[in-house]
Amino acid sequence: MRSEFDFIQNLKKKYGLNRVGDDCAVLPKDGKTDMVVTADMLVEDIDFRLDWTTPELLGYKALAVSLSDIAAMGASPKWSMLSIGVPESIWNSSFLDAFYKGWHQLARQFNIELVGGDISRTPDKIVIDSIVGGEVAKGEAILRSGAKIGDAILVTGTLGGAAGGLELLRTGSADSDLAGAAFELVNSQLRPSPRLLGGERALMPEGVSAMIDISDGLSSDLSHLCLSSGVGARILAEKIPVEPNLSALGWGDSQTFNLALNGGEDFELLFTLDEKKISMVDSPLFTVIGEITANIGVIELIYNGKTEILRSEGYRHF
Amino acid sequence: MRSEFDFIQNLKKKYGLNRVGDDCAVLPKDGKTDMVVTADMLVEDIDFRLDWTTPELLGYKALAVSLSDIAAMGASPKWSMLSIGVPESIWNSSFLDAFYKGWHQLARQFNIELVGGDISRTPDKIVIDSIVGGEVAKGEAILRSGAKIGDAILVTGTLGGAAGGLELLRTGSADSDLAGAAFELVNSQLRPSPRLLGGERALMPEGVSAMIDISDGLSSDLSHLCLSSGVGARILAEKIPVEPNLSALGWGDSQTFNLALNGGEDFELLFTLDEKKISMVDSPLFTVIGEITANIGVIELIYNGKTEILRSEGYRHF
Repeated sequence: MRSEFDFIQNLKKKYGLNRVGDDCAVLPKDGKTDMVVTADMLVEDIDFRLDWTTPELLGYKALAVSLSDIAAMGASPKWSMLSIGVPESIWNSSFLDAFYKGWHQLARQFNIELVGGDISRTPDKIVIDSIVGGEVAKGEAILRSGAKIGDAILVTGTLGGAAGGLELLRTGSADSDLAGAAFELVNSQLRPSPRLLGGERALMPEGVSAMIDISDGLSSDLSHLCLSSGVGARILAEKIPVEPNLSALGWGDSQTFNLALNGGEDFELLFTLDEKKISMVDSPLFTVIGEITANIGVIELIYNGKTEILRSEGYRHF
Repeated sequence: MRSEFDFIQNLKKKYGLNRVGDDCAVLPKDGKTDMVVTADMLVEDIDFRLDWTTPELLGYKALAVSLSDIAAMGASPKWSMLSIGVPESIWNSSFLDAFYKGWHQLARQFNIELVGGDISRTPDKIVIDSIVGGEVAKGEAILRSGAKIGDAILVTGTLGGAAGGLELLRTGSADSDLAGAAFELVNSQLRPSPRLLGGERALMPEGVSAMIDISDGLSSDLSHLCLSSGVGARILAEKIPVEPNLSALGWGDSQTFNLALNGGEDFELLFTLDEKKISMVDSPLFTVIGEITANIGVIELIYNGKTEILRSEGYRHF
């Protein structure tokens, strides 16, 4: 079966679509500014389940996933549109009021204005399309395609928490009494925080050459970044910041590590940095996990002193 | 049950959303230009049926409905994003290739670039969110809210054709041998032409004070325009340009007139014009159908010399 990645590559080639394929499209705005814009579709029973979340959390997350795409360009979010389709039973409930409340809770934090969208009826499932527009200084949007051989590879935060939370939800281990580490894992899954560090917030180091957000999983998203840049990568297992709360699962180290490597939806940022700038980075926000190599599309993982060639095992719709 | 209109009015008030509620949102772009942006969700078995259309026509129409919103602002379309969710059976077919082909057939006519979007899996139905961005000279976007008492009311083209085509599809009277008037009706429903007359095309008369596209139906969309403008309207039944091909239905005049008055999806433009400019309008593109009055929210229809107060009977999702 063709993958989403192959399908999009084919479309790009067939119709000459040069702006497609990054976390956001970059379009000229004015003499000093570029606009970035992104759309993310969330479908009931594919991307979320109503018995695992609340309408407020779903509204929050619908915006968060798009803000993460804005973050991955080093941009600042400005406006949003929200298209939402619901069945009649949901229309006649308080669902949408709570959904928009959760959405605005996050929007307020970043001063994002809801400017439009659409409301439709569906036969039975909820579907959401979250559109966000942002701004970045002209020519400064950070693409997936800028990684150079020798660049350091960094990630923000810790990895695997959202996948761990999903595991707790899947196995029915998450209930309303959940506390401590288990609560934090479920929270990472249902209420992710977009890492808006670039643009006006200026928390990104200088010399970032390429960036992507970790939505499908580290292995998959690093592969996307490398293929866009025409490079490879070598990462060190011991450097990967595994989410400490994963101990709540009671799993062995290798299973936990697998969540950090392949688990999706952490919405942390994965970026590459000019090696000459690496000495200037001393921030608890970032961890160096490896370096860019010349082996196009090949991701090497150094694990217990041995080199493995990694397959992309992150989330795919198809 | 609350209507979509009431729901959106309530959201606007609750969260202070000043840009929501027109055909497009208007955002500042640069010193000379405003950006307009719109999103339209199309859901299988609500907004379209696979046994009534083809993937190519669906792709074409998905773009056409959004271009009609751009047209209703007097703007020119520039770029688009397309979010699409499909079940696995559709993914494994040639559906999407044909869908994008139909989409590009229309996009090429107006030089619109596909810059992004999303692809998702759905449990069983297809869902599409069509997003289009456009441009208009600063401050020149034509809102729904600008109609003044005494303004003339005009429409482009003819009305009721798309609803007539839907009727033929519903009753199973449309088959591949369809020709002549019946073919034209079905074509209006499945392959609407957006009336991009404003912006760079400069085919709109001077002095247009308010505009909306006819997607829900003349009665509903005129009501939306009047409520936004804080005015009322009086229209003359004999002036309403009923689509001549509706004769193919073999219906009586009053039933046919009902389609022109309340049928949705013609995607013609409905606009108001300063009465002093009306003498300058001599174009086969437009028909004067009435005038704006002081009766806020009241639509009067003069029919056989009698005045009826019109209810909005156009299409509503809820």
